Amino acid sequence: MRAVDIIIKKRDGLALTQTEIDFFIQSYVKGEIPDYQAAAFLMAVYFQGMKDAESADLTLSMANSGEVLDLSDAISGIVVDKHSTGGVGDKVSLIVGPMVAACGVPVGKMSGRGLGFTGGTLDKLESIPGFQVALTTEAFKHQLREIGVVIAGQSANLAPADGKFYALRDVTGTVPSLPLIASSIMSKKIAGGAHKIVLDVKVGTGAFMKDLASARALSALMVKIGALVGREVVCLLSDMNQPLGVAVGNNLEVQEAVRTLQGQGPTDLTEHCLVVAAHMLVLAGKFSTLVQAKTHLAEKLAKGEFFPKLTEMVEWQKGDVSYLEDLSRFPVASIQHEIRAEADGWVSWMDALAVGEAAVLLGAGRAKKTDPVDHSVGLLVHAKVGESVTKGSLLLTLLANEESRLQEALAKLTGHIQISDRQVAELPLFYE
Amino acid sequence: MRAVDIIIKKRDGLALTQTEIDFFIQSYVKGEIPDYQAAAFLMAVYFQGMKDAESADLTLSMANSGEVLDLSDAISGIVVDKHSTGGVGDKVSLIVGPMVAACGVPVGKMSGRGLGFTGGTLDKLESIPGFQVALTTEAFKHQLREIGVVIAGQSANLAPADGKFYALRDVTGTVPSLPLIASSIMSKKIAGGAHKIVLDVKVGTGAFMKDLASARALSALMVKIGALVGREVVCLLSDMNQPLGVAVGNNLEVQEAVRTLQGQGPTDLTEHCLVVAAHMLVLAGKFSTLVQAKTHLAEKLAKGEFFPKLTEMVEWQKGDVSYLEDLSRFPVASIQHEIRAEADGWVSWMDALAVGEAAVLLGAGRAKKTDPVDHSVGLLVHAKVGESVTKGSLLLTLLANEESRLQEALAKLTGHIQISDRQVAELPLFYE
Repeated sequence: MRAVDIIIKKRDGLALTQTEIDFFIQSYVKGEIPDYQAAAFLMAVYFQGMKDAESADLTLSMANSGEVLDLSDAISGIVVDKHSTGGVGDKVSLIVGPMVAACGVPVGKMSGRGLGFTGGTLDKLESIPGFQVALTTEAFKHQLREIGVVIAGQSANLAPADGKFYALRDVTGTVPSLPLIASSIMSKKIAGGAHKIVLDVKVGTGAFMKDLASARALSALMVKIGALVGREVVCLLSDMNQPLGVAVGNNLEVQEAVRTLQGQGPTDLTEHCLVVAAHMLVLAGKFSTLVQAKTHLAEKLAKGEFFPKLTEMVEWQKGDVSYLEDLSRFPVASIQHEIRAEADGWVSWMDALAVGEAAVLLGAGRAKKTDPVDHSVGLLVHAKVGESVTKGSLLLTLLANEESRLQEALAKLTGHIQISDRQVAELPLFYE
Repeated sequence: MRAVDIIIKKRDGLALTQTEIDFFIQSYVKGEIPDYQAAAFLMAVYFQGMKDAESADLTLSMANSGEVLDLSDAISGIVVDKHSTGGVGDKVSLIVGPMVAACGVPVGKMSGRGLGFTGGTLDKLESIPGFQVALTTEAFKHQLREIGVVIAGQSANLAPADGKFYALRDVTGTVPSLPLIASSIMSKKIAGGAHKIVLDVKVGTGAFMKDLASARALSALMVKIGALVGREVVCLLSDMNQPLGVAVGNNLEVQEAVRTLQGQGPTDLTEHCLVVAAHMLVLAGKFSTLVQAKTHLAEKLAKGEFFPKLTEMVEWQKGDVSYLEDLSRFPVASIQHEIRAEADGWVSWMDALAVGEAAVLLGAGRAKKTDPVDHSVGLLVHAKVGESVTKGSLLLTLLANEESRLQEALAKLTGHIQISDRQVAELPLFYE
C-alpha cells in the first residue's frame, strides 16, 4: 500500500477502505508518512469529503492511534461525557461537571487550553491559586472514583493522530472540513473512554460553524459516526453569535461558575447548563425524561446544592478553596473601561467573535500556543441581543492591565456592538 | 504575507496576485515555506485550477527561481527550442537537432533522463561509448557557437522551483493539473533561454495527456502563457497511442536516429521529424511557409545530408563516432524474442504505454531515479495500427539480457497488442 495511491483515490472522489484509512493514519503517526503527503490528503478530503463509514473509520483509527482510556475501574456502568465545539464565555464544563456528579453520575473530563478566540477550561481553572491540572491517569481515576468529578489536562497519550493532524490542518488551510472536524472531536471523546456523549455544537460568529446548516450537518455526521462506532451521541445546537453568560476571561468565568452553582447565575448560562446536564443525566439513565431531569436539577441549583461538589473538586486538585468561598479574593484587573449605549434602542449585535478576540488582545487568551495568560483580564457583557437599552446604559466592561492592550481591544470591538432603533428579537439559546 | 492565507485563497477558488504567487514560489525554493504547505497548495490548485494570468505568473516565477540562460553570446538572433511532453520511442530530438542546425538555425538543448515509461534523450545518447552529457554552461555555449548544435544534461541551475515542485507533485497525487504541467514545461524552456518554442504535445495511452480534449487544453494554455510572457509557442498534437517509429530502447533508438538521418528511417518517424523541424525553421524565420521548409528538409534528409551534423555533435561531445558509422558495433542484447500474429487481420492496438512499461521491465528505463539503464535492451515494433498482417507476421521483437525480465515484459504486453478481423483505420501522426 502506498500513501500516494490513497491520496489519488481520495482526490478522485472514491471512498477509502478501512484498511487504507488505518494504514494512512497509523503510518502518519509513526512518521512513516511525511507531513507533505498528509497535507495533500487533507486537502483532497477537504474537496471530496468522506462517506459516513469513512468518517467513522477515520475516527476509530485516530482514537486507536494512542492510549484508549478505560474508566471501568473508576466508574461502574456507563461513562457519559460532554463536549463543546468551543465558544466565547463558555464555562459550562465548570458548572455542569459538579452538577451531574452531585446527581450521582461521574464526570471525568480531560480538557484543553484556549487557542485563538475561544477560552480553555484548564486556563480558567488555573486562575484558582494552586489548582493542579496535571494529573497522572491513576490520580485522575482515583479522584473520579472517590468524588465522582475531575477536570484535568490530558495525561494519557490520547488520539495523537488527531493532535498531529490538527496542527497540520491549522497551517495548510484544511480546518473547515466536516469529516475532519467530526472525526477530530469524536476520536478524542472515544479515546477518553466515553460511551455516551452530549455534544454542544455552537453556531454563530463566535463558533467554528458560522451557520445553522453547517452546524446541523456536523451534528448529523457526529451522531452517525457515533452509531457506526457504538457510541450514543446527542447533539445540541446552541447560539454563539453573542457570548454565553456575562463573563469572558479566566477568573471572571470561574467567579461566574461559582455564582451559577450558588443559584445566582445569569439566566442564559443557567438555562444552558440545565439543558446540558439534563441530557447527560438522561443518557446515563438517571432520569427517563428531560423534563424530570431538568426539574430536579433546577430545584437543586436554585438552592446552591451543587456548589459543594465544585469546592470538593478544587480541594482534591490542590486549589485554594477560600477563593471560591470569597470571590473578592480573586485579583482584579487594574483598568476598568466601560462601554455605554450612545442612544436608546435595542441591542442588535454583540459579536461573540469580536468579544473573544478582544479578550485575547487583553491577555485572557493566546494567539500562539506559547503565549502566557493573564487570569484577571477580560470582558463583562451586560447587555444581550434583543435587550432594550437607554442612552448611557452599560453594555460592556473591559478589564485590562495595560492601556495599550485596552486600546487594541477597543479597536477590535469597533462596529461589532450595535444598537438598533427598532425592536430586535432575542437570540435563542438553543436552535435544536 | 502568510503561506496559509495564500493556500486558503486558492482553496476558495480566488485568483492569486503575481505578488502572492512569487512570494509562495520563491519562499518555497528558499526553504522558508515547508513541503507540507506546498503540498496543500498544489492540491488546492489541482481542484481550483488557475486563470491564464496566474499560470503565466507561476511560469515566470519558477523560471526566475534559478539561473536564466542567456544564449545571446552563442546565438545571434532568435533562439528556437523544441520540447516533447514525452512518449515511447520518441527519439525526435536526436534527429531534429542536427537537421535544424544543418539548416543554419542553432539548437542548444538541455535534456533530461528517462523516468517511468518514457525514455530520456540523455540515456539514449549515453549508449554511444564516450559520449559526454555533462557540459559546463561555457562548454555548452562554445559548442553551440562553433557547430550550432548541442544536447546536454542540465548544467545550469535552471528553474529549481520546478524541480522541487515536480518531485513533490509526484508523491502527493498532484501531477495531472493543467496549470502545473504547463508552467512546469514553459518555465524550463524560458530558463533555458528560448524565445520561440515548438511543443510536441503527445496524446494517447503512452502520453500524460490521454485524450485529445486535455491535450488541446494543455496546448491552448501553453500558447496563452507564451503570449503573456512574450514567447511565441507553436503546439503540435501528435499521436502516442502506439510508439513512434520502430525502436524503443536506448542504442536501438540511436541506431534508428542514424538511419533516419541517412534517409532510411521509418515513414512515421521521418514525417514526424520533418514537421517538427519545418515548424522550427519557420519560427526562426528561415522559411516563410511550412511547405517550403518541409520540401527543403525532405530533399536533404532523403540524401542523408543531415547525418554529418550528428556525427559532428557526437565528436564534439567525445562520443565514439565509429559506432554511428558502423551500427553493427553497438552491443546486441543476448535474448531476442519474437511476437507474431496468431491470425490474419489488421493491427488494432499496439499500446504505447504497455510497450513503454515493457521496455522499463527489460531494463531500458528506470522505475526509480537511481536505477541503472541497460543500453542494449528494448523492443522493435514491426507493425503499426491499421496495418494488415497474416498469421505468423512479425509484430514485435523483444531484446533482453535476462530471461526473467523478458518474462515480465511479455506479461506486461499481454492483451495490449490486438489483431482485429475487420479492417482498422491507421492512427494519424498528428491531430492538429
